[in-house]
Amino acid sequence: MNQPLFQPSRRSDVAPFIAMDVLAEAARLEAQGRKIIHMEVGQPSAPAPKAALDMARKALDHGRLGYTEALGIRPLREALAAHYRTTYGVDVPVERIMATTGSSAGFNLAFLAAFDPGDRIVLTAPGYPAYRNILKALGLVAVEIEVGEETRWSLTPAHLEEAQKEGPVKGVLVASPANPTGTMMTADALEDLIRYCDEAGIWFISDEIYHGLCYDGEEKTALETSQNVIIVNSFSKYYCMTGWRIGWLVLPEQLVRPTERIAQSLYISPPELSQIAAGAALNSVQELEAVKAGYAANRALLLDGLPKIGLDKLLPVDGAFYIYADISRFSSDSLDFARRMLLEAGVAATPGVDFDPVHGHEFLRFSFAGAHDDMKLALEKLRGFLKAV
Amino acid sequence: MNQPLFQPSRRSDVAPFIAMDVLAEAARLEAQGRKIIHMEVGQPSAPAPKAALDMARKALDHGRLGYTEALGIRPLREALAAHYRTTYGVDVPVERIMATTGSSAGFNLAFLAAFDPGDRIVLTAPGYPAYRNILKALGLVAVEIEVGEETRWSLTPAHLEEAQKEGPVKGVLVASPANPTGTMMTADALEDLIRYCDEAGIWFISDEIYHGLCYDGEEKTALETSQNVIIVNSFSKYYCMTGWRIGWLVLPEQLVRPTERIAQSLYISPPELSQIAAGAALNSVQELEAVKAGYAANRALLLDGLPKIGLDKLLPVDGAFYIYADISRFSSDSLDFARRMLLEAGVAATPGVDFDPVHGHEFLRFSFAGAHDDMKLALEKLRGFLKAV
Repeated sequence: MNQPLFQPSRRSDVAPFIAMDVLAEAARLEAQGRKIIHMEVGQPSAPAPKAALDMARKALDHGRLGYTEALGIRPLREALAAHYRTTYGVDVPVERIMATTGSSAGFNLAFLAAFDPGDRIVLTAPGYPAYRNILKALGLVAVEIEVGEETRWSLTPAHLEEAQKEGPVKGVLVASPANPTGTMMTADALEDLIRYCDEAGIWFISDEIYHGLCYDGEEKTALETSQNVIIVNSFSKYYCMTGWRIGWLVLPEQLVRPTERIAQSLYISPPELSQIAAGAALNSVQELEAVKAGYAANRALLLDGLPKIGLDKLLPVDGAFYIYADISRFSSDSLDFARRMLLEAGVAATPGVDFDPVHGHEFLRFSFAGAHDDMKLALEKLRGFLKAV
Repeated sequence: MNQPLFQPSRRSDVAPFIAMDVLAEAARLEAQGRKIIHMEVGQPSAPAPKAALDMARKALDHGRLGYTEALGIRPLREALAAHYRTTYGVDVPVERIMATTGSSAGFNLAFLAAFDPGDRIVLTAPGYPAYRNILKALGLVAVEIEVGEETRWSLTPAHLEEAQKEGPVKGVLVASPANPTGTMMTADALEDLIRYCDEAGIWFISDEIYHGLCYDGEEKTALETSQNVIIVNSFSKYYCMTGWRIGWLVLPEQLVRPTERIAQSLYISPPELSQIAAGAALNSVQELEAVKAGYAANRALLLDGLPKIGLDKLLPVDGAFYIYADISRFSSDSLDFARRMLLEAGVAATPGVDFDPVHGHEFLRFSFAGAHDDMKLALEKLRGFLKAV
């Protein structure tokens, strides 16, 4: 009767993650007894490092897990400060480091603390779809710029000049290594872009969630160039802790207290157990490098094998665990193609439309975070499937 | 040089949680060797139920903790559906139940899914401060209505009639038992208010986070009256799992998919370990009732003892684990009073200004979730302190 009155908000009309729908369809097939090779979801198959699991077990035995400071427990923040010294040779005051409930919370908090409704934020296409969905939900405007081979799939100051002609740009969000491409910016390109933002008063948000997973090229944190940048990072990828929902921010000093205040109300604190375990994960480099060596072997296998079976237009796989493949010689409907590939070859991958509304219909994203034998089997299954297409 | 350009957003200018500042000051005194009795933070001192801890240990041994469906794992959602049947005699389809990263995520998601910027949402004062802070961060307008003894500290349809004269009301948020008062709405008052909202097309958001902790009165879920309501709940209070950051929503059917889409981008999923453990917590009623009996003993002690030492104006403590005490005969500056009480008596409580900007300077909130011996000691310390004031 009154039902028509109770409608969802306009801002809730964001796009779904198609990757999640592929995952659901894959699960349906597996329930029927089919063997499915999962190359659709961006998460390590390895568990958290042993030291992290041990710390978690101890914490379970020790007593109550409670709220922590909104900025996170001090030992984790100190361990992260040490991480910046040893990994990048950068000194970051503990006070500017904040633990977050995954990088998901990091993005949400950074956007809320830096931007007001209507502000325009530049993103790349292709790019991680949650960026534009969170921006939309918060009343912000995502300005998506198509990047291509001519700039090695990176944003440049020229792109920002162009975007500013249509209105002021308040922020830029860059991931390097990027999702879905795995491509990295060169050190020079990254530095140029940050310096441009610094001078123009544009917030530079650096998504460094795939740091640690670099096979080719040089890994630089944006903190090496400016202190005005916002760093978003996470224990999900290199540290194999997706389901723990734990990440961190490095904030410019003037954003710390505003972000803390928002976090007190919006999150209270990140999960305490995950904070405790994450500190131990930072010291598990040997174990994690072995996991990374597995990705590297998968990467080599696929970079050799995919071109031989017809997928020969691949973006540079500098880092992360993704291959973004041009499938235009087979299909111009990546969603339909991904569905058929799942059904006929039993290989799940994510259609590019998740990442790029303009050109994504001609791309698939393959994650190679799975087992090496699965990657071999995937190549075999795909050979037959692509021949038949 | 360019520093002045990089300023926090206007919407990040939300109020801090003063309770957290009291907590920090208490920690400073403890570091100096002082014994402090904690009555400022609203969290159980008991750990999660044994069965929940056991499930968590098993999950740590079992393998990777990963992303789950954005709506949460099916077994937890099914256990929650069963919980509604056994506890309230209400049938709720599993499809309308969603696990969330604490009730914090539940509020954020509900607000995003139901409201657009500028929408007006009615709250009570006194009330939980995070409500208005989240609303502000999301561009929504909190319409705070002062409630008092004449309506037993509850909202009524007459309040809503009044609020609608100044503009359309899109939602109402009610907690029963409430924070900071512990006061509950009567079954009739609750039903009247929900029916009014139902007919007026106003979203009714029912914060049921203190359900299970009721000492006096009848506990009703808003689902018994309408299917248009949004239920927010959590494992933090009755289930003693604050630091696990796990809660749930029950949504009207038409909000499920919009909320799921937002959650996919904003949270990905709640922590998997917490989801697994929470399912076991639902079946630990015997253990949790023993914890509750401890609160009940504390409550009886304080309701007897506080009036004898001069704090004789207390709001009805029907549920939760809070006593909201009128301190106006001692002070009209609750912040200053709380600081002196902490320093001189070693008892930490939260000044009412956190919960009510208008009358909160004459109130303190005492949490009685602590140990019984601490409550006894607190009474003794407060006796001396109040005599000297």
